[in-house]
Amino acid sequence: MADQKTVRNALLITGAAAAGYFLWKYTQRDNTAGSTTGAMLSPTTTTLKETKMTHILHVNASPRGEGSQSRLISNELVEAMVAAHPGTTVTDRDLGHQIIPFVTEPFIGAMYTPAEARTPEQKELLMLSDELIAELKAADVYVFGVPMYNFGVPAVFKAYIDYVARANETFNPATYEGLLKNKKAYVVSAHGGAGYGPGQERESMNQLVPTLRDILGFLGVTDVEFVSVEGTSAPEEKRVPVMAAAREKIAAIAKAS
Amino acid sequence: MADQKTVRNALLITGAAAAGYFLWKYTQRDNTAGSTTGAMLSPTTTTLKETKMTHILHVNASPRGEGSQSRLISNELVEAMVAAHPGTTVTDRDLGHQIIPFVTEPFIGAMYTPAEARTPEQKELLMLSDELIAELKAADVYVFGVPMYNFGVPAVFKAYIDYVARANETFNPATYEGLLKNKKAYVVSAHGGAGYGPGQERESMNQLVPTLRDILGFLGVTDVEFVSVEGTSAPEEKRVPVMAAAREKIAAIAKAS
Repeated sequence: MADQKTVRNALLITGAAAAGYFLWKYTQRDNTAGSTTGAMLSPTTTTLKETKMTHILHVNASPRGEGSQSRLISNELVEAMVAAHPGTTVTDRDLGHQIIPFVTEPFIGAMYTPAEARTPEQKELLMLSDELIAELKAADVYVFGVPMYNFGVPAVFKAYIDYVARANETFNPATYEGLLKNKKAYVVSAHGGAGYGPGQERESMNQLVPTLRDILGFLGVTDVEFVSVEGTSAPEEKRVPVMAAAREKIAAIAKAS
Repeated sequence: MADQKTVRNALLITGAAAAGYFLWKYTQRDNTAGSTTGAMLSPTTTTLKETKMTHILHVNASPRGEGSQSRLISNELVEAMVAAHPGTTVTDRDLGHQIIPFVTEPFIGAMYTPAEARTPEQKELLMLSDELIAELKAADVYVFGVPMYNFGVPAVFKAYIDYVARANETFNPATYEGLLKNKKAYVVSAHGGAGYGPGQERESMNQLVPTLRDILGFLGVTDVEFVSVEGTSAPEEKRVPVMAAAREKIAAIAKAS
């Protein structure tokens, strides 16, 4: 199986930058200490000034190439964010052209064996899962391009979910607290049909949005924005305004990011 | 890849019996023709007397063997139905120990090429899909054993859905009418946690039930009954009453079937 992971931007990512931030630390005298309101705590405070260097993880779940609208629009969103913020780095994970194995009984066994007790075989079984989780941890922004297949996510995206939802790695099994903190996710979904949006006739059949919203929330990613491109099976002339609206939305996202 | 399909019952299934029914056809004289209410239509009618010979398709989606509660209870349900109705035949499709490939661009191309225009390569690409669909058409009762993975169906079950939801085979693409008619489905789902039932705290996070309900409904199977076994990760003593309740339910289903 070919490794589909590519780091699109040539910038070297090391140390603090790998976490997506550069930190400038300086101390300033707190002059309110002697004021009438008084400071009950320390008379000096440390302030962090952050200049954000965004690292994006772009996950594409469509097996289609040029014909894929989720791929097209999610690619454009990533490009727009990179253009708006030079220095942004991107990792591409192309699930559409990769096989994520289904969960097996030995995989479950390895997953629930404490890390320090795992056999070499168990470690090997978890290698791809480890890699996918490391990508999620390293990025601070996620862009998921996901076509709707039979009302839900494509099977390969569910395989991805089943590989990255791991106790003690992405969630705390005792508290059910998500461990992917301070992340922002954008989901670009494409639906062949239409009417799956809020308040629309097929909203209740839309499994894609709840699947992404719930699993991301469970893993700690509560800031999730959806861009849905509908009616992608419709004739060209009907698709033009839909694509224009999606592009307006991604331009606004890139500007605000 | 080993073919996991086995026909458990040794009964030979051919012709009409393959459709799950034996038909006895006879004609009877309609004596109401000259009555005061009158018959506006034909004075003779043909009546079909059916003696049902149920054919069950049992789909297991758990990769686990003895530890799987969805496998255990769905197996027991099938056994109970067979015991209640001798002559019932069963086809097992063990997704938990099989690889259903992910949908690829060539697969999509083959799927949307009219059957008579498909190349030999396209026909080959659809072979497994054809086989899975033939199983669904041949059975009149479905028993799905499905564990909950990360709030939804295991990836392999979504791969199965993406392989059997096919235009002109299982749904009419013009009318969105399902083509699997007069079927009855039972879904035995097992959840490691609890509270995913109707009105319970995690109901909105339960993607498994809506996924099965909506896709089966879309394919024409509107008569779907769910048996959910919750808290399967709980200690043995807590599981005893849960399993007892599930067994009571399947006994009632087998009796009523």
